[in-house]
Amino acid sequence: MEKREIQVRRAGAEDAADIARLLHDFNTEFSEPTPPVEELAETVRSLLEEGEIVVLLAGEGPDGIALLRFRPAIWSAGLEAHLQELYVVPPLRGRGIGWALLEEAVELSRERGADGIDLNTGETDTAACALYESMGFTNREGGPDGPAMLFYEREI
Amino acid sequence: MEKREIQVRRAGAEDAADIARLLHDFNTEFSEPTPPVEELAETVRSLLEEGEIVVLLAGEGPDGIALLRFRPAIWSAGLEAHLQELYVVPPLRGRGIGWALLEEAVELSRERGADGIDLNTGETDTAACALYESMGFTNREGGPDGPAMLFYEREI
Repeated sequence: MEKREIQVRRAGAEDAADIARLLHDFNTEFSEPTPPVEELAETVRSLLEEGEIVVLLAGEGPDGIALLRFRPAIWSAGLEAHLQELYVVPPLRGRGIGWALLEEAVELSRERGADGIDLNTGETDTAACALYESMGFTNREGGPDGPAMLFYEREI
Repeated sequence: MEKREIQVRRAGAEDAADIARLLHDFNTEFSEPTPPVEELAETVRSLLEEGEIVVLLAGEGPDGIALLRFRPAIWSAGLEAHLQELYVVPPLRGRGIGWALLEEAVELSRERGADGIDLNTGETDTAACALYESMGFTNREGGPDGPAMLFYEREI
């Protein structure tokens, strides 16, 4: 499969079940908690209908997903884009699906008026880090040799 | 000054100019681009009025600021909270103002129904990292000895 043959499309509310299945598989693979697929599908459907999330799907399966959030920026008149989730089903990795989803996510963010896009990932997910860096993302402050930017979280 | 004497209050639209000045000083100190204060104040006023940002201010100056974003969560029925900016004016650092702002930010996020709160910081900002870790934030996946979680961004 060549990269240019990978079809990426914008998901609608009718894709909520597929999206929920992919998200559920994502968190299960990485040992993160997840609600049941049916519950997740209801949440996804609501968020899609409210315009709270924008989802891209790749391939027929669908085989991969990119989930984006947008909000008004503080430092400009534009939007801030956040790539919250990016996932490709295990048997189809290494074929450019993640690359195609990421490229489309950046393009979509540009079209919507975002000035920048950010995301979080783990340092041991070297394939993801390499993908992001190949697409112009940086984890460094003030230049390629700058200090790393870290992501922190806590439950409430 | 003892920590319990630090007053933290929720900002309103009438605080837009003070907020803009603090944000402007923040980015200027860290050599990040910033619009002029007047332009920033207009953006802040709009975002406050639209409920797009929630801002906490500490002290009389005001001397410190915490800026929060909220959005509906994907993985639960609650909210996801993001601490986008946290700043204390240089001459008053080390007196617990950041700690008081962070504590109130977490409490406010809990009251609003957030399940979790996250933020980004630089690895060389050891004072900030120590503050976040003292308040229960982690930069590690799957436990204290897990791999670091990284923040990536690119302009569009």
